[in-house]
Amino acid sequence: MVEYSEQMDRAFHALADATRRAMVDRLSRGPASVSALAEPFDMSLSAIHQHVSVLEASGLVVTEKRGRVRECRLSREAVARVEGWLRQRRELWEDRFDALGEMLGETSGEDG
Amino acid sequence: MVEYSEQMDRAFHALADATRRAMVDRLSRGPASVSALAEPFDMSLSAIHQHVSVLEASGLVVTEKRGRVRECRLSREAVARVEGWLRQRRELWEDRFDALGEMLGETSGEDG
Repeated sequence: MVEYSEQMDRAFHALADATRRAMVDRLSRGPASVSALAEPFDMSLSAIHQHVSVLEASGLVVTEKRGRVRECRLSREAVARVEGWLRQRRELWEDRFDALGEMLGETSGEDG
Repeated sequence: MVEYSEQMDRAFHALADATRRAMVDRLSRGPASVSALAEPFDMSLSAIHQHVSVLEASGLVVTEKRGRVRECRLSREAVARVEGWLRQRRELWEDRFDALGEMLGETSGEDG
């Protein structure tokens, strides 16, 4: 449970940065090398590597060394896990709203 | 665009903390006062207020003063916005996988 919570901390933290979100966005269109990921940014390769490390530690991105190139790809499961956490809360909240609406509908003739 | 990006930074940052996620979780079951939100935590009221402020700044939680009580409620729209950002990326990635599968299916008789 604590481990799951730490993984969620890391995933949300990784996404709390515009550069890393742009990387996730790029990777949603297909795997890319670290240099390809670096291309749109006016940033040192060391800074890029640091961002990739944060994404990798969060589980959202998986990297694999192929010869001299480190290929990055998005983890569908990790993205789905974070998305699912939010969806569950939103749905609970909407269900409550629906229930409240029904209740108000039922009692609208009463004192209130 | 920058404003949108900063809002996303703040929303993901707000969710990168187990206490704040527990508060969002609680609020998904209905509005609550700050003291009710504080109840499960062994934490000073000042620390609780700080967490609520971070959630409020992110837009995920809206608070309203009612007499002496500050009531907090979840913003369905803000949660849906963050969830939607993740869903779009996951769906793009899945579409790519599907397209790749079709392509591999078409070329499976060929070399390689």
